[in-house]
Amino acid sequence: MKDNKNLRPIWQDDDPDSVKIIDQRFLPHQFVTIDLKNVDDAIFAIKEMCVRGAPLIGITAAYGVYLAALSLQYNPAGDDFITGEFLRLKAARPTAVNLAWAAERVLNRVLSATGIQNKIESARNEAGKIAEEEVDNCRNIGLHGLEIIEEISRRKAGRTVNILTHCNAGWLACIEYGTATAPIYAAYDKGLDIHVWVDETRPLNQGARLTAWELGRHGVNHTVITDNAGGHIMQHGMVDLVIVGSDRTTSTGDVANKIGTYLKALAAKDNGIPFYVALPSSTFDWNLSDGVKEIPIEMRNPDEVRYLQGLDKDAIRSVLIPPAGSRAANFAFDVTPARLVTGYITERGVCDAAGIRKLFPEKI
Amino acid sequence: MKDNKNLRPIWQDDDPDSVKIIDQRFLPHQFVTIDLKNVDDAIFAIKEMCVRGAPLIGITAAYGVYLAALSLQYNPAGDDFITGEFLRLKAARPTAVNLAWAAERVLNRVLSATGIQNKIESARNEAGKIAEEEVDNCRNIGLHGLEIIEEISRRKAGRTVNILTHCNAGWLACIEYGTATAPIYAAYDKGLDIHVWVDETRPLNQGARLTAWELGRHGVNHTVITDNAGGHIMQHGMVDLVIVGSDRTTSTGDVANKIGTYLKALAAKDNGIPFYVALPSSTFDWNLSDGVKEIPIEMRNPDEVRYLQGLDKDAIRSVLIPPAGSRAANFAFDVTPARLVTGYITERGVCDAAGIRKLFPEKI
Repeated sequence: MKDNKNLRPIWQDDDPDSVKIIDQRFLPHQFVTIDLKNVDDAIFAIKEMCVRGAPLIGITAAYGVYLAALSLQYNPAGDDFITGEFLRLKAARPTAVNLAWAAERVLNRVLSATGIQNKIESARNEAGKIAEEEVDNCRNIGLHGLEIIEEISRRKAGRTVNILTHCNAGWLACIEYGTATAPIYAAYDKGLDIHVWVDETRPLNQGARLTAWELGRHGVNHTVITDNAGGHIMQHGMVDLVIVGSDRTTSTGDVANKIGTYLKALAAKDNGIPFYVALPSSTFDWNLSDGVKEIPIEMRNPDEVRYLQGLDKDAIRSVLIPPAGSRAANFAFDVTPARLVTGYITERGVCDAAGIRKLFPEKI
Repeated sequence: MKDNKNLRPIWQDDDPDSVKIIDQRFLPHQFVTIDLKNVDDAIFAIKEMCVRGAPLIGITAAYGVYLAALSLQYNPAGDDFITGEFLRLKAARPTAVNLAWAAERVLNRVLSATGIQNKIESARNEAGKIAEEEVDNCRNIGLHGLEIIEEISRRKAGRTVNILTHCNAGWLACIEYGTATAPIYAAYDKGLDIHVWVDETRPLNQGARLTAWELGRHGVNHTVITDNAGGHIMQHGMVDLVIVGSDRTTSTGDVANKIGTYLKALAAKDNGIPFYVALPSSTFDWNLSDGVKEIPIEMRNPDEVRYLQGLDKDAIRSVLIPPAGSRAANFAFDVTPARLVTGYITERGVCDAAGIRKLFPEKI
């Protein structure tokens, strides 16, 4: 763990046999960390959302392959074993494409290295390299997104720029800076007057719990609202732009992101408010062209809808909301069609849907 | 209280000096009733949302004027006193127009009656009359709305008709049948195969707590979802129609309803799904023509967003969601422009926005 100012959600300390994470399930009320010691630990952390957010899921899976490589010392099955562990990691969650992308990068390094120590070292290096690349990506997303906020600030003659975000696409979802939050932090650090509307983001409240915590730590002026409120405040001129992250974006610009994102995109469109998606290129799925039809949407445990966890005095408790006999359904993501997206803020710059191909010509 | 099968949310028993209500804050986990003995009790019940829903707020305020009339026995100020009490009741909540409408009807009867006993009797009669009129209205809304569901059921050759509703516009919000739920109960009672998606409706979860409880008691197949989920399920053909209630509707058809309704209307429009508003004519505000500009939107205590109440074993507890230092804002309603509404299901029949004037020619 780095010092209190420079936390990361995943890191290695001097112990080469484990990877540390913040267990985000208990934030903001309790700061808990976990040592991941094997692939099962990594899968648990991803599935149970101790870690979440597309870039962080990818890096956790990358380190998961490293943890698998470590066990080569005691496991004679070698490459077949590693490939099997990779496949188990890949299946941990279905929607974010970063998971398969990052884990596969590490897998390929392990498979092409010779000798157990080399395989382990190459896995560790590659996982670390992906993490640092994502930090660079997020820093660049911040710089490109900053220009958008600066332009609005100029147009408003320095009056407060109101930004709405959904879920948490902050450093907790990445490594540093975040995706959707990177332009926000950059604008704040530059002294622009900004205010962030934080959608609470049911069912797991990553907005109210994580984004509010991040912004508060950084000193950014923010207000938590229900997911229902965004349309009303857009109708009344209280939002200047929307920035969200993405879990998977098609080459045509359709965006899978936390459930409810689509509703905010519709409201932004209806009120003429720019709607931006901030994402590193690792979040693009270059093979897909129709997000609504092709991106698999995870169904999670309905109890995440039925129960809600929060702080009661000093204890974290879960309380039941609906009648015990009522069924619930838990759709974790939705897809926002490209026609509703003003622009994509990537590490290479900002583009519209048609511009994705131009910005990443080598990918398509 | 009527028997368990025929509960009403407000009623009088043999005691003429009080009015009984279900304290809806504790449903579905605890069934609590309150005796309203004076105007302060009625104002508390309305403000604190022991009772909620436009028709029920109206009837509670109507009985509030009756409770004020009762105290004429001990208060020499007479009509001025009653008018003052009416004004206090009217100010209890700003958005639902039924409140002023119903309370004023009772006030006018009290003012025109002579003698304290006559004033009391006329108040009681008028409040009871309004309640029975709303029961009739809801019954007729059910019959008219049933035709819409039957038509969809025919088109689907009897396969399940999936209806999405937001908040609670059930009998708990009215007296019997409800508004948005009246067609649902009518369809269920007629043996149609229906299933209801119940938006949980943050912050106070009237969907998850109240609508799910109502539907479960009646035997109607239903599933609780987060407010974020509606767009996704509409994109994927899982919703055949949306029916919501209203707190105030302009003569031009703009609909103030629970915060988040507008987002569902946008999603319905985007996916070609019919979006209906079920309302008794008491919910129309014939003086207004631009809902977004003219309907006052209540701001409630931000702690309703920051804390969530639910069941922990046998006790109802409130848990804190965001960091203690994060600010929240609590917009209680939003306005859905008429252009997004397929039709209005009223006690006189179903019409589109242009048809409101034809259905209620005496009002405009």
